[in-house]
Amino acid sequence: MTSAPPPIKGIDPSTSLLMTDLYQLNMMQAYAESGMNEIAVFEFFVRRLPKTRGFLMAAGLQQVIDFLLDARFSDAELDWLRSTGRFADWFVDQLADYRFSGDVDAMPEGTVFFANEPILRVTAPIAMAQLIETRIINFLHYETIVASKAARMMLAAPGKALVDFGLRRAHSGEAGLLAARACYLAGFAGTATVPAAMLYDIPIYGTMAHSFIQAHDNEARAFEDFARARPNSTVFLLDTYDTEEAAGKVCELAPRLKEAGIETNGVRLDSGDLVAHARAVRRILDECGLGHVKIVASGGIDETDLKAFAAAEAPIDIYGIGTSLVTSSDAPALDCAYKLQEYAGRARRKKSEGKESWPGRKQVYRTLDAGGVISHDLITTLDDPQSSTQNTRPLLQPVLRNGHPVEPLPTLEESRACAADNLLQLPSRLRALEMDPLPPVEISDALRKLAADVDRHGH
Amino acid sequence: MTSAPPPIKGIDPSTSLLMTDLYQLNMMQAYAESGMNEIAVFEFFVRRLPKTRGFLMAAGLQQVIDFLLDARFSDAELDWLRSTGRFADWFVDQLADYRFSGDVDAMPEGTVFFANEPILRVTAPIAMAQLIETRIINFLHYETIVASKAARMMLAAPGKALVDFGLRRAHSGEAGLLAARACYLAGFAGTATVPAAMLYDIPIYGTMAHSFIQAHDNEARAFEDFARARPNSTVFLLDTYDTEEAAGKVCELAPRLKEAGIETNGVRLDSGDLVAHARAVRRILDECGLGHVKIVASGGIDETDLKAFAAAEAPIDIYGIGTSLVTSSDAPALDCAYKLQEYAGRARRKKSEGKESWPGRKQVYRTLDAGGVISHDLITTLDDPQSSTQNTRPLLQPVLRNGHPVEPLPTLEESRACAADNLLQLPSRLRALEMDPLPPVEISDALRKLAADVDRHGH
Repeated sequence: MTSAPPPIKGIDPSTSLLMTDLYQLNMMQAYAESGMNEIAVFEFFVRRLPKTRGFLMAAGLQQVIDFLLDARFSDAELDWLRSTGRFADWFVDQLADYRFSGDVDAMPEGTVFFANEPILRVTAPIAMAQLIETRIINFLHYETIVASKAARMMLAAPGKALVDFGLRRAHSGEAGLLAARACYLAGFAGTATVPAAMLYDIPIYGTMAHSFIQAHDNEARAFEDFARARPNSTVFLLDTYDTEEAAGKVCELAPRLKEAGIETNGVRLDSGDLVAHARAVRRILDECGLGHVKIVASGGIDETDLKAFAAAEAPIDIYGIGTSLVTSSDAPALDCAYKLQEYAGRARRKKSEGKESWPGRKQVYRTLDAGGVISHDLITTLDDPQSSTQNTRPLLQPVLRNGHPVEPLPTLEESRACAADNLLQLPSRLRALEMDPLPPVEISDALRKLAADVDRHGH
Repeated sequence: MTSAPPPIKGIDPSTSLLMTDLYQLNMMQAYAESGMNEIAVFEFFVRRLPKTRGFLMAAGLQQVIDFLLDARFSDAELDWLRSTGRFADWFVDQLADYRFSGDVDAMPEGTVFFANEPILRVTAPIAMAQLIETRIINFLHYETIVASKAARMMLAAPGKALVDFGLRRAHSGEAGLLAARACYLAGFAGTATVPAAMLYDIPIYGTMAHSFIQAHDNEARAFEDFARARPNSTVFLLDTYDTEEAAGKVCELAPRLKEAGIETNGVRLDSGDLVAHARAVRRILDECGLGHVKIVASGGIDETDLKAFAAAEAPIDIYGIGTSLVTSSDAPALDCAYKLQEYAGRARRKKSEGKESWPGRKQVYRTLDAGGVISHDLITTLDDPQSSTQNTRPLLQPVLRNGHPVEPLPTLEESRACAADNLLQLPSRLRALEMDPLPPVEISDALRKLAADVDRHGH
C-alpha cells in the first residue's frame, strides 16, 4: 500500500557505499577517465570550536572503521546505479570492486581536541579516499558533538549519575543509537535506549511514564501494580498530579512492598522547580525512613541546569537527560571538514575565504605539565617529528594499514576510561561551561613554512 | 577485530520494535500482570512552538505507517531480551506475537499545524499503543522539524531552487535520508544524497568538491577534465583559489567544450560574500556570452541568509543548503509529546506543572477565509462534530483501522503538492520569518468542559 519504502530498506547503513553525495561519484568517474589515481591524503578537523565550547571530545572512530572494513555497494545498489543512466557501465563495474585498502591514522576515541587539529587522516588512492568522505564526516561529526556535549555535562555534575533519555528526540533511530554510545563513552552511566544494550552492551535504565499512572484510577494503586510486576525496577514517577502528595503515597506503600520482599529503589521528578521538589521529596522520604531511596530528575535538563543544581546542592542522585544531549542543542553542528592535504606527494591547500586550511600530512603533539594537565598542543608536519618524552606524545595513532587493522581498536570500556583520563587532563579554564576559549594550540614553524611554500607554488 | 558491532547490525531499523525505551517494556509487563488491556487513546502534539516559529509542517507519517505495518521483534532481539533476565518468559513470548492492530488517524503530510493540535492519534489496547511511543515520536519529530525548516526556506526564497546538501552533517545516515525526504516534501528541488534517489525517487544534484580542483595542478584543466568526464553535470566550483579569476577560466573553456558538444550548465560559489561574488561572476559570465549559465551558492546558508539574498536581488539561481536544514539549527528539537488522552472509555489528563494537556479524543477543524487563507483552527472533542462546509474541514483523517490501511497513503509527490497548497494558505503574518506568533487556534467549549470534568473527577 505504501508509496515509498521505509528509510533504510534495501540499504544496509553499516556497509553501504551508496550513503554518499552525488558529487563523490561524479568526481570518481572523472578521476578514472583522467587516469588520476595517485595517493591522496585527507584529514578531518574542526575549523572553529562552537562559541560556547572550549574543547571537543573525539568519538565515532569505531563506526568509521567498522564501515571501512565492510564498505561496499550491494548488488541492488549497483543495479540501481546502472538504471539511472548517469554513469558508464565500466565505471559501475569498478564500483562493484571497491574495497577500502588505504591507511587510517586517528586520535583514539575519548581524546580531547581543539580547532584545526586533525583527528583522522586517510591515505589512499584519491577516488577511494574521496567516496567515503560523506559517511566519515557523518559518523565523526555526530558522535563527536554528542560526546563533547556529554563531557560538558559530566564536568557540570560531579558525583552524579547521568542517563541518556534521548532516543525519541534524536534525529532518527540510528542517531539515538549513536548518541547512546557516544555519551556512555564520555562517562554517562547508561541509557534508556534498549537496542544500545544489545548492540554496545551499555547499561540500560527505565522507570515508568505518566501514561501508566493516568491509566490507573488511583495513583497509589499504579505504584503498587508496577512494583509487584517489576520488583527490580521500582522507580515511581511522582509528578503526574501532585509531586509531594505522591511522595507521601510512596511512604505508605514502601513498608507493604517490603513485606513482600520488594525494595523501593527510587522516585522520579519530571516537571516544575526540580530543586524545590527534590528538597521537599527528600525530606518526606527521609522522615518516613526511606533515606536510601534515590531521586531521579528529568525534563529538559542541560549542562547549565546541572551546574545550577550542583551549586544549589539539590538532593538529586540521577539525572535523565534527553533532548539537549542528543541534539547537542547549543551547537547542533560543527564547522568541520575532510580536506585534501596532499596529492601525488605534494602538499595542497584550499584558500577559499574564511576556509583556509593547513596543508600537508600533520601530527598533533600534546604536552602535559608536571601535574598531568594539558600544557599545550603543537600541530606540525608529519616529517617534523618531536621528541616524544614522558610528557609529550603524538595524538594520531596508526589504525589501518592497507585496509587492515594495525591492532584491535580499544573496547568501548577502554575508550570510556580514556575519556575520563582526558577530562582530568583539562586545564581548569577549559572545564568551565562559559569561557573565552584560548585553546592551547601552537602551529609549528615547519607547518607555517610548508603553508608558505604551497602558497608560493600556487596550490 | 572490532569490539562492538556497527550501529544497526542485527537490528532492522525499519521494523524493529526493540527501538524503544526500557520503560515501555517495563510498563507492558506490568499491564500484562495487572490484566489491563483496555483501549487507550494516545495523541501526538507539540506543546509550544519554538520561539522563532509561527507554524510547523507535519511530516513523517509515511515512516510511522510503514513501521506499524511491519513492526515486530526479530528472533535475535527476542533471544537477547530473554538473555537479559529482565523479563518473564511468558512476557517475551507475548512480545513475539506483537502485531499492530489498532487505529491511526492523522493530518496528511504537508499540513501546516500549530501548538496543541494533535497531528496523529493512536487507538489500541494500552500496551500495544505504549510500546510504539518512542519510535513514533522519533519519526514524526525529526521529519516535522526538517519539513518545517525547509518550508521557512521556501518562503524566504521565492522562485529559487533549493537543494539539500546536508547528509554529512545530519545526525546519522538515517537522519540524512529522512531529511532529504522531508525537505523535498516541503518543496525543495532535490538532494545530493544518492540513496534518497534510490529509496524515495527524489531528484539528485551534484557538482564537484574543492579537492577535485586541488588535486589538479591547474584549475582550468580540472574544469575541463571534469566536463569531458561528466558532460551532463558541468557545474564548476569557483572558489578554491580566486572566484572571479575562476569565472574567467570558465569563459575561456566554454567555447572549447561547446565544440565538443558539451554545454556549460553552472558555476558554484561556496565561500566569502556570496552576493558580491554572485554579482561579479554574473557580470563576467554575461559578458562572455554565458548568460544561460546558472549560479549555485552554498556554504552555511539558512533562511535568514536567503531572505537577505532575495532582498539584495542576488543573481543566484540555486541554493545548496546543508547544516541549517538537516539540524534545524535554530530549533533542533520540539517540545512534543505522545500523551494518553483516554483509557477504558474515560478521558485522562496529565496535570504536571507546565505540561498540562487537553484530555480526550480530539479533532482539529480548519476554516479558510474567502481568499483561501487560514482564518482559524478549532480544537475540539471528537464527539463535538462541526458542520463541514466548503471552508471548514477536519484535519485528522483515518489512516489505519484494525491495523489495515483505510486507503493508500498519498505518494510523496502528492504530499509535496499538499505542502505547497498549505504554504499558500498561510496568513501573511505567519509567512514572515520573525513574528510574534499568534497562532489562530481556538479551544472549543466542548473541550474546555471535558477538561473541567476530568479535573473534577481526579484524572
